[in-house]
Amino acid sequence: MNDQTTKVSKQAFDLVLFGGTGDLSLRKLLPSMFRAFIDGEITNGSRIFVCTRKQKEFDEILSVIEVAFRNFMLDGEFNAEQYSQFGKMIIPAIIDVTDYEQGWEKLKSQFAKREHNARIFYLAIIPNIYGNCCENINKAKLITDNSRVIVEKPIGYDQESAEKINQTIAQYFTEEQIYRIDHYLGKETVQNLLALRFGNSLFENLWDAKSIDHIQISINEQVGLEGRAGFYDDAGAMRDMIQNHLLQLLSLITMESPNKMNADNIRAEKIKVLQALRPIINEEVKEHTVSGQYVAGNVNGKLEPGYLEELAKNSDKTSSNTETFVAIRAFIDNWRWSKVPFYLRTGKRLARRSAEITIQFKSVSHNAFGADAGSLTPNRLVIQLQPEESIQLHLMAKDMTQLKTVLKPVKLDLNFTESTNGFKSFGYKRLLLDAIAGNATLFIHRDEGAAAWKWVDPIIKYWKEEELSPYLYRAGTWGPKEADKLLTNDQREWLI
Amino acid sequence: MNDQTTKVSKQAFDLVLFGGTGDLSLRKLLPSMFRAFIDGEITNGSRIFVCTRKQKEFDEILSVIEVAFRNFMLDGEFNAEQYSQFGKMIIPAIIDVTDYEQGWEKLKSQFAKREHNARIFYLAIIPNIYGNCCENINKAKLITDNSRVIVEKPIGYDQESAEKINQTIAQYFTEEQIYRIDHYLGKETVQNLLALRFGNSLFENLWDAKSIDHIQISINEQVGLEGRAGFYDDAGAMRDMIQNHLLQLLSLITMESPNKMNADNIRAEKIKVLQALRPIINEEVKEHTVSGQYVAGNVNGKLEPGYLEELAKNSDKTSSNTETFVAIRAFIDNWRWSKVPFYLRTGKRLARRSAEITIQFKSVSHNAFGADAGSLTPNRLVIQLQPEESIQLHLMAKDMTQLKTVLKPVKLDLNFTESTNGFKSFGYKRLLLDAIAGNATLFIHRDEGAAAWKWVDPIIKYWKEEELSPYLYRAGTWGPKEADKLLTNDQREWLI
Repeated sequence: MNDQTTKVSKQAFDLVLFGGTGDLSLRKLLPSMFRAFIDGEITNGSRIFVCTRKQKEFDEILSVIEVAFRNFMLDGEFNAEQYSQFGKMIIPAIIDVTDYEQGWEKLKSQFAKREHNARIFYLAIIPNIYGNCCENINKAKLITDNSRVIVEKPIGYDQESAEKINQTIAQYFTEEQIYRIDHYLGKETVQNLLALRFGNSLFENLWDAKSIDHIQISINEQVGLEGRAGFYDDAGAMRDMIQNHLLQLLSLITMESPNKMNADNIRAEKIKVLQALRPIINEEVKEHTVSGQYVAGNVNGKLEPGYLEELAKNSDKTSSNTETFVAIRAFIDNWRWSKVPFYLRTGKRLARRSAEITIQFKSVSHNAFGADAGSLTPNRLVIQLQPEESIQLHLMAKDMTQLKTVLKPVKLDLNFTESTNGFKSFGYKRLLLDAIAGNATLFIHRDEGAAAWKWVDPIIKYWKEEELSPYLYRAGTWGPKEADKLLTNDQREWLI
Repeated sequence: MNDQTTKVSKQAFDLVLFGGTGDLSLRKLLPSMFRAFIDGEITNGSRIFVCTRKQKEFDEILSVIEVAFRNFMLDGEFNAEQYSQFGKMIIPAIIDVTDYEQGWEKLKSQFAKREHNARIFYLAIIPNIYGNCCENINKAKLITDNSRVIVEKPIGYDQESAEKINQTIAQYFTEEQIYRIDHYLGKETVQNLLALRFGNSLFENLWDAKSIDHIQISINEQVGLEGRAGFYDDAGAMRDMIQNHLLQLLSLITMESPNKMNADNIRAEKIKVLQALRPIINEEVKEHTVSGQYVAGNVNGKLEPGYLEELAKNSDKTSSNTETFVAIRAFIDNWRWSKVPFYLRTGKRLARRSAEITIQFKSVSHNAFGADAGSLTPNRLVIQLQPEESIQLHLMAKDMTQLKTVLKPVKLDLNFTESTNGFKSFGYKRLLLDAIAGNATLFIHRDEGAAAWKWVDPIIKYWKEEELSPYLYRAGTWGPKEADKLLTNDQREWLI
């Protein structure tokens, strides 16, 4: 969000992908770099180190990546000729992340006379080896002033364990060098939301408890466990989604206006919001949260197994109280948001895949048109991040086809693109380029994570202590009925 | 605007067009009725009396109307077969409006057994015979409870003369039966503006001095005198345009919300605004108003004569201080609009034909994006009534084509129509159907006219007493430079 972004594509860089042939790297990171390459956003002389433990020939790695691109990129995106050009940037690095003897010296040798280039270490590996990896990066003397390390969620399991991981990384990298990534924040539509809010008095003047009735943030998945059984059953939706993605979106939407849109200011404002979240503790947990777990049900015409069945298939567990669904009524106790409810919802195996933020403004204070003109739907700003990206403003307007005054709801598209097929941005691509350019605006500060854990931990703790079983819901539905009640009790409803 | 409009097309009516073969009737009124006929908005059994002084055969009148339709209607609108159906509604009435002996008894005879039908008398005649006409309508016992009389501007020359005309008509018709027409108010876009404002908290919450920087209303003509020399030189732009059209639009935009959108409430609110206009008297006239008169100049590549040349050609005058251009800085002294300037402008022989209202919101309180993101244009709602109808909301949004945060101005269309060729409504058609249905919402109450005259009179009086010559401007320009200064002195500019 600041002028540092203009650095993109100016300096040659070295990107080191630890876990370079892993799922994240093949599905997201390498395709993102390929897209940036096609778009001319990569300076000549840049290099991408694809680290892998298994001994592989260069051609073998290139063809693994090619297969992944052909599978995971959009129709028409892959181009063999451009790929062969792109391939020249790629350097395979056969190393064991945890064992300095396995390949690190060779890696080190490849960085001589490249001190001035930006150096980005991407830890696309499991968090419990973050420490070893950083230690070895340090041992190989790879860390320069112009170095950054990118880490993925999950960073920890609760506030304490997250703190430990952060401390480990902090032994080698300064906080300014640590880039905690959340790909939702890389979506252009999220950037546009900030532009709309802070660039238009029409929105900024109405961005508070006086004018906004409530805000909903839903990230709904249609998939189930997807083989991540072990990790997921320990984590659950609260840690996997709410603590990071949903609270990140919430804090971006609700933060105060920074005096200047740079990384430090924006992150400071986000921290303030996260710290202002009203704690939900003890008995209040029952009042303000709903957890759920899916059982077998019909998804798109197919009977999908329940969470337990999937879990048993992929692990040795046969019972679990892990939540695959969470709905929360949250409040931010500050001047701007006093008494405005924020409804957060996320779940697996829901009816549809979608990620959507709805800002619902208050109704007009009085309907002067009378019942004959139709009912007046309150204004809404709806930000969709998945499956398509869009921002829509819902207004009431006169039905111009009749003389009589009849008001009808209309939707205006605020994502202004030339494309008629909707807009699709690539969060990882943007964030990787930001990290290369040293722009930390859209990355998460240590204190943000800490504040989020501090809010999330007591809820999980209460569920556990009280041995609350999650409410069951059928796969292919919108979660347990209790989640609907959370809103109907407030005379509201889920808008997706 | 109220549910009375639903009465349209339900009752058969008798419309009596005095001045039935005059310019207004042939260009606007009869084409409007033909359009309503085509659109199925006219109940069977309705009749249109085309009054004319000269003895003409029925076929002759029908062919005069047909020629007019072919000339003045839009391409593709005229249809000979539909016209022959429409013709069956038309009844020629050869009468002298001022002389009861000339045809009135015959007219009277045609209304026997039609007491229950709506009866609309349209005075498309010069105002100085309104009295005679009403007297004869009364003498012929044509006025029933279900009768209305429609009168056109100009109603009077100043507050006093307007009052006389109103008194004359009021001898025969109650105020509820008198429909003073202003075709700008019949435009669907003006109705949509009301719907947008009162149907959306997004707008209603910002509709005041706190959020609005200023409002501009411009009605710019490209034509010159058009042969109305005698009338126009006595009137001038202030009486011809400001007193009615511009002040009517101003009052609709700025009125308080009525508790219910019916004729009495809306007109009461409009009167309050007009009465709250801050008087511009004596020396203040020089500070807040600019009058102009065009001289010869290039309009669309053609040298057009100046006002005096046109005047001399069409009358025996060789000099004139009549203003063909007016710009005014006005204020409404009430809670909602305190200190908000309203810039009114109208003129003949200007650079382009247009009628536009711009509601300029205040800037965001602070630009947090910095200079690199581009400058932030304040939000605007732009209502265009001529040459096309549209409502556009001007916002700032992120340029989605670049990663860097650059904000660009974008325009959203708020006139929601199926048509891709823009929207065109016919003010007269709507207003005629409203009058037939007995819906006075969009017609002007006597007190509105009086309040407008009360505000306009002292300005004209001061110009005259001080013998202020209008500033000269070239035909084809945007008026005298002094009109620009009116705004630049306030650090603003004309937006059209």
